[in-house]
Amino acid sequence: MLMLKRPKLPHGFRLAGVACGIKSQRSTGARRPLDLALIVGDARCAAAGTFTTNRFAAAPVAVCRDHLARSLHQSRAVVINSGCANAATGRQGERRARAVAAAAARRIGCGVEEVLVASTGLIGAPLPHDRIVRALPGACDAASAGGLEDAARAILTTDTRAKVRSAQAVITGRTITVTGFAKGSGMIHPNMATMLAFLMTDAAVHPYLLGRLLRQAVDESFNAISVDGDCSTNDSVLLLASGAAGNRALLQAGRSERPFVEALRAVCRALALDIVMDGEGARKILEIVVDGARTDADADRIGRAVAVSPLVKTALAGGDPNWGRILSAAGAAGVPFLPSEVSLQVGGLPVVRQGCGTGRSGARLRRLFQAARVTVRLGVGLGPGRATLWTCDLTRRYVDINTHYTT
Amino acid sequence: MLMLKRPKLPHGFRLAGVACGIKSQRSTGARRPLDLALIVGDARCAAAGTFTTNRFAAAPVAVCRDHLARSLHQSRAVVINSGCANAATGRQGERRARAVAAAAARRIGCGVEEVLVASTGLIGAPLPHDRIVRALPGACDAASAGGLEDAARAILTTDTRAKVRSAQAVITGRTITVTGFAKGSGMIHPNMATMLAFLMTDAAVHPYLLGRLLRQAVDESFNAISVDGDCSTNDSVLLLASGAAGNRALLQAGRSERPFVEALRAVCRALALDIVMDGEGARKILEIVVDGARTDADADRIGRAVAVSPLVKTALAGGDPNWGRILSAAGAAGVPFLPSEVSLQVGGLPVVRQGCGTGRSGARLRRLFQAARVTVRLGVGLGPGRATLWTCDLTRRYVDINTHYTT
Repeated sequence: MLMLKRPKLPHGFRLAGVACGIKSQRSTGARRPLDLALIVGDARCAAAGTFTTNRFAAAPVAVCRDHLARSLHQSRAVVINSGCANAATGRQGERRARAVAAAAARRIGCGVEEVLVASTGLIGAPLPHDRIVRALPGACDAASAGGLEDAARAILTTDTRAKVRSAQAVITGRTITVTGFAKGSGMIHPNMATMLAFLMTDAAVHPYLLGRLLRQAVDESFNAISVDGDCSTNDSVLLLASGAAGNRALLQAGRSERPFVEALRAVCRALALDIVMDGEGARKILEIVVDGARTDADADRIGRAVAVSPLVKTALAGGDPNWGRILSAAGAAGVPFLPSEVSLQVGGLPVVRQGCGTGRSGARLRRLFQAARVTVRLGVGLGPGRATLWTCDLTRRYVDINTHYTT
Repeated sequence: MLMLKRPKLPHGFRLAGVACGIKSQRSTGARRPLDLALIVGDARCAAAGTFTTNRFAAAPVAVCRDHLARSLHQSRAVVINSGCANAATGRQGERRARAVAAAAARRIGCGVEEVLVASTGLIGAPLPHDRIVRALPGACDAASAGGLEDAARAILTTDTRAKVRSAQAVITGRTITVTGFAKGSGMIHPNMATMLAFLMTDAAVHPYLLGRLLRQAVDESFNAISVDGDCSTNDSVLLLASGAAGNRALLQAGRSERPFVEALRAVCRALALDIVMDGEGARKILEIVVDGARTDADADRIGRAVAVSPLVKTALAGGDPNWGRILSAAGAAGVPFLPSEVSLQVGGLPVVRQGCGTGRSGARLRRLFQAARVTVRLGVGLGPGRATLWTCDLTRRYVDINTHYTT
């Protein structure tokens, strides 16, 4: 498996990113900001998706679930708009999302259920679907193997930069490529909470296996990051496999899918960390490794409690090694453990042993906590359960960005 | 029941607030900041306490639990220090908390198990118990019926003002007083998360009943507020009843305790709102009323999810009526409901009906959301479950305060 320095589009896909007039000029500074992305497969692709667990799942999420089921997980295209989330928009919102899919299907010449849709932006505003429908013919014409960067930019909201990652691997003598682009920034939280990621591969993979492998990769990447603990209405990760690489098709879990899994996992993890690093106002990243919990699920709950704690995140912002806040957040996770068995290391330096401060809180600890990337390792001393989570610091800039978003 | 404009100490108590040298001059600006509070009963009092659910419960919490059990819920005094939480300090921390209780007991002339202790401040630092022990004789001598204000000031950390509330009621022809003082500010969250409150009454109440009534009052006041979602290691609410008012003693739940319950509830709720209003950097308060949930517990979970959401709290800071964030937070609470049945009112204005925006998002909504106190009412349309939660806005100032706290 090889991460590519320059992202490369897998075979069998054409992409475009265009302006359709939903995103306001004011919000970005650009005169006609890109706000409509299109992914088109040269032929039908195997498709898989994982979606938000929010009860207010947005209209495009409902439409994706429906289309994936009706097409037996075969998709031809994905249409993504930014600037409007089409969430909390009721039946009208769903009708409009379907109208977008139908317009794309007509132009491409495929079944409507073969088109997936995604939206991101303000919740509660009606989707200006007519603008998307008007812009779709141009987007279809513009779609090309060179459209990756434009598509990646068109899905951004408060992100400060596009996030694109590629990896390659070899299966049955053929080089396969996995490439993805993502948006995140605000409202990022474990459990598929407010982020969009679109993954493409030219590997040939059976849709059933594709869904399983995507779920696993997402759990240890996009579901392991937190920017502000909020779960969005629109989170979606979609994966399309064109099969154009010509490998012998991967049909079921065994050993042969290993290189593909590694490439998929690497792309997902790299995009997830890109999202954390580009969290609203974020300048630092905290890696939280929990071990010794009774189960992996317990370790995960403890790690998440630390990852969402505003007190931990502001301490990180200030490079202030206030490790008591980490213990306190862990202790409030609702997971039983014995404080007297707990240990904590900050950047390899033991600061807590058997639940008690070691007194190592001098200049060295401060220096370690001031790094751009800090790793803390919390040992609970109960069992084999492990988890790794990532979060970013909470800064003034986060507050400034989120204090005025609709306006 | 009558709330008093000027707080009044119930009969049977003497209080003091003195400086013992734990809180640094730098942290407050005062030359010798008050950091040791003392409550002494003229005689043994019925006592009750509710404590943090954090796994890293601090040493004083462990000592209080032990002392309440061993004294059969009879207490004579409470010693509270600020500046050091005595948390994550292991066995040494517990020994030191016991040494403080023993020193007070010697001076007052009571059993060590009749003294309760509480600490607040930095986690992980060893308690300078010798300073407390040295200052205790002076505090005992200074304790008087006029010491309420000093005691209330001595327990503060990042709070900007003392919080003291009193109410009176009449039981069996006698006027009884309930008075409390509290500290909160940072790290405030439902479930007894980082706040201290000390309540005194001169009503005669059996310790068993006292514990039940305190638990109820705390659930709908201190446990219903959130500043930053973090749960502290030291949260404690203690209630001492001197019986000096001379009412016929309240022995079991019936109708006769009603006036006392109302006074206790009013004082707890007033103190809880004082804490939210004085949340770190807070300038506004959000009241979240959830109804129509399947159960009260479900309503509570939904309300809490909204109360801790940084996106909701920053929108509140900006007076930005981004109600989509409220729906999104509610939808992520992990409680099942039908989005199509959901309604939302902001300050009485319906903005969502049947899960769909009403389009009322103009100047009037903005004005309502810019008030110092905003009430939102979320109807889930499933059952009789109700809950009311309070939270404050998340401002730049919160970040500034918490970015450098140990330093």
